Amino acid sequence: MEKQEFMKRAGALARENIAKGLGGPFGCVVVKDGKIIAEGSNHVTTSDDPTAHAEIVAIRNACKTLSSFQLDGCEIYTSCEPCPMCLGAIYWARPEKVYYSSTKNDAKNIGFDDQFIYEEMEKDYAERGIPFERLEDEESTKAFHEWTKKNDKIEY
Amino acid sequence: MEKQEFMKRAGALARENIAKGLGGPFGCVVVKDGKIIAEGSNHVTTSDDPTAHAEIVAIRNACKTLSSFQLDGCEIYTSCEPCPMCLGAIYWARPEKVYYSSTKNDAKNIGFDDQFIYEEMEKDYAERGIPFERLEDEESTKAFHEWTKKNDKIEY
Repeated sequence: MEKQEFMKRAGALARENIAKGLGGPFGCVVVKDGKIIAEGSNHVTTSDDPTAHAEIVAIRNACKTLSSFQLDGCEIYTSCEPCPMCLGAIYWARPEKVYYSSTKNDAKNIGFDDQFIYEEMEKDYAERGIPFERLEDEESTKAFHEWTKKNDKIEY
Repeated sequence: MEKQEFMKRAGALARENIAKGLGGPFGCVVVKDGKIIAEGSNHVTTSDDPTAHAEIVAIRNACKTLSSFQLDGCEIYTSCEPCPMCLGAIYWARPEKVYYSSTKNDAKNIGFDDQFIYEEMEKDYAERGIPFERLEDEESTKAFHEWTKKNDKIEY
């Protein structure tokens, strides 16, 4: 299969998702060695999971398939430019490349605007729409010390 | 229970997580009406899921408990300042407030540096460590049109 076919599949998943009433108009596939190893579509509203964006679902499925928490040698084809959450997930999963079809602006035009998250990231914590406040506790500090001392830890 | 106790529980989850060898030194609780309704800790390496950060796990659990994709009226207590992926997830889940104990800098000092993701976000797509490339396909466009026309859609 070729790149364009992988993207066509991502878009077809988005369309199927709407037809089946499973969630938003977004689909994603993960490809390795020229084959689709996992698929995902947006299930936020039907699985009561705000993190169930197409990319997150596809990444989680691909990692299960590979029995790995890393997408070494993989490419992600997503029907729309990823939001900041999915972008973060992509960096943690470390695929080789990401292809997207519709743009953030296309998404904004149909009511999906993630620009506000980028804008919130620029703000001081107290001024954010969702305020972030530091509340120090020694348990958290102890956890970091214990992690540092742990000899058999799996780094990621 | 008081705020400090909620944060103590988040930190205790982080410590338990290390002791049990389940993942990184991070814990999180979601609170509603003065009670913990869900907990989470980092399971990236043991569940082969790069998205299984403490905050994501806790948000998903809390949404299951509430049978909702939104955390209305909830507060999140996390043992460490959230990474960009979790920050995005928090914005999509829309809790009222976020409290954190250890800072991004504390995390960096023990080997967890998410600053690179913020830096990547600032870069042109072609220059990113993981390149992003547009590959337009009409299926994605059709999906957006179909979403717009769908009368019984659940917006989120």
